[in-house]
This record gives sequence, structure tokens and C-alpha cells, in this order.
Amino acid sequence: MYTDTVNKLINEFEKLPGIGHKSAVRLAFYILESPIDVAKNMADTLIEAKDKVKFCSICYNITESDPCEICSNKKRDESIICVVENVKDVVAMEKTHEYKGLYHVLHGSISPMNNITAGDIKIKELLERLKDDTIKEVILATNPTIEGEATAMYISRLIKPLGISVTRIAHGIPVGGDLEYTDEITLIKALEGRREM
Amino acid sequence: MYTDTVNKLINEFEKLPGIGHKSAVRLAFYILESPIDVAKNMADTLIEAKDKVKFCSICYNITESDPCEICSNKKRDESIICVVENVKDVVAMEKTHEYKGLYHVLHGSISPMNNITAGDIKIKELLERLKDDTIKEVILATNPTIEGEATAMYISRLIKPLGISVTRIAHGIPVGGDLEYTDEITLIKALEGRREM
Repeated sequence: MYTDTVNKLINEFEKLPGIGHKSAVRLAFYILESPIDVAKNMADTLIEAKDKVKFCSICYNITESDPCEICSNKKRDESIICVVENVKDVVAMEKTHEYKGLYHVLHGSISPMNNITAGDIKIKELLERLKDDTIKEVILATNPTIEGEATAMYISRLIKPLGISVTRIAHGIPVGGDLEYTDEITLIKALEGRREM
Repeated sequence: MYTDTVNKLINEFEKLPGIGHKSAVRLAFYILESPIDVAKNMADTLIEAKDKVKFCSICYNITESDPCEICSNKKRDESIICVVENVKDVVAMEKTHEYKGLYHVLHGSISPMNNITAGDIKIKELLERLKDDTIKEVILATNPTIEGEATAMYISRLIKPLGISVTRIAHGIPVGGDLEYTDEITLIKALEGRREM
């Protein structure tokens, strides 16, 4: 129904996560009906971002300088590494202003369903960092999903023999949450994780 | 929380229609975490699309050749012009395989709320086409919204004195629709447009 070039543009948008065919058509027509600058700025920004933004060679967080700001910040506690699945998790943790240690971004989680094995994520890079004697604790902050739990389990088994403390972030009812509307699995986790008052 | 370049990329995605901040962050990280080719292909396609896709100098539909395929198709009925608000409406009409006339894309509708006046859309270009004696009927197929109705009304007043037949597409309950769930305005339109059986 559309010309080849328009279809190509629609397909390009459709490749983006969470963008279905109808949204892709809407975005394509927005570009086609906008002044040339809109497309140009977008194209330039895409290339610039890929050009400037790299992964930190230590923690694999995104950064414009290597090592990243967190890894090269001498005020951070170098004895703790918080292991997360992706870059957005680092941002979420940093927003708390509570955590002062370092990070390690796995870029995924072990998921046999999606053909992602331990070798596909940054686990061996984490083990490499642990060879250094400075690290005393590894906090596993992968998501409380099947994949995240499996990844945490897998990593903990590798680290424990090294004599480094391995902890898992707590799961339970979110603050402001309602018992009535909490799913069973979360309730079970909340019960399991109960503490003396 | 993010670096300047990442924020710039997020902002660029946020400019797209229907993309909020959270979606923009998700899209930006998809680009950052994907191979460079993903960003490159997208950038190239954006530029290529703006480069190749033009508006037809007759009907203002998008096209890669001027005049467009519809305007230059001698089999189409050159005595009828269907006036629509945007390019996607042409596609919707073409999908019916029923309409054999020509089109005129206004690229918007008169909307004082959004500062869009009659001069901002392709109305004078439509009147220019009507100077030709071949056109016998203009079908106003703008949307059944306040803006679409106002635009249809405005255009019909300009065309009627020219002695050209002006019609409006019918509004009513969509096929397969349910009276119970039809809004009042549509029901009123359906009653107004009732026909002898």
C-alpha cells in the first residue's frame, strides 16, 4: 500500500522494542510529514550516541569516559560490588543515594528459553574482578524473575568458594503496597524473608 | 542521571508522537545496547526516506515519483476528488478497492485551538485544481471530529458556488458495532443519516 521507501522506514521503526505495526506507521508518517531537520537530528543523534557512549571496561555500565565515573570515583566503597542485569538498574540504584559501592552490569540474565547462557552475559568478567583481594561482598541484585533468580543462584555458587560474602537483595511487599493485591509469589517471598521486630 | 549524550538520545525519541519519557528511555537503551548497525541502518533509513519520499504536486499524497501513481493513472476517474486530512486516510480508502477517483490530501484540518487556519492546509491548492472543468464531484472525507466537520463545512462553502457537486461521507454506527456501546453523537448522526429501506 505504501512505497518501498516508506515500508522500509516503517520496518525500521517496527524493529524497536514495544513498537508494533500501527505505532511504526504513525512514527514513519510523523517523520515523512515533518521538516527534514527532524529526521536529520534524529539520524545524527543516533550515530553520535553510538559513537560517544561506550561500556566501561571494568563494570560494563554505559559511559563516555573509560573507566566510568563510578569506577573511577575514589570515594566509592571498592569492597562491594552490586551485580545488576542492565544499565537502567544502575540508574535505579543510584537514585536511592544509599548505595556507595561499585557495580557490575551483566547485560542480561541466564535464560535457556531465549538461548542466553552464562557465557553470553558478563559473568566471567565479574569473576575476573573478584581475583583482586579488595572485594569483600557481592550483592546480587538481579530481578526477582525466574531468569534473575537462576542467574543469582548460578553466580553465588561460583563466588562462594572464593571466600567472598554473597548476598541477595530482599524481596517482599513494596512499600505502600497492599497485601490484598499482592501476588502469591511475592507474599511467599515476604514471609520467607520475615525478620524479628 | 544519564550522560549528556544519552539524555540527548532520550530527548530525540521523546519528540516522537505517542512516545513518553519511559518509552524514550527504553528505546535509547535498546539503541545503546545494540550493535552499531542498528543505529546506522535507522539513521540511513531516516535520511533516505526524507530524500526519496516527496509530496505529489497535484494531490499532496506521498510519492516517490511526481505526479503520484494515482494522479498519473489514466484508469482513475478524473471527475471525482476525495478530500482527506492525511496520507493515511488515502491508504484506508485505497484498501476498500471501491473508490476509483482521485484524492486531495489537506495535511491537517482547520483547528483554531491548535492555531491551524485554512491557510495552513492545502485548501487553496484544492481550489486551484477545481478551476479545471473535468471535476464534477468533491467528496469531503475529513474525519467526523469537530475539526474535520468544520473543515468540511468551510470547504463546501467555497466549492458550492463553483457549480461542483459537494458530498460528505456518511457517519453512523460502524458495521459490526453495537447500539448499546455507541456514543450519543454517533447515534444522532446515524439517525440523521437514516434512509428509506
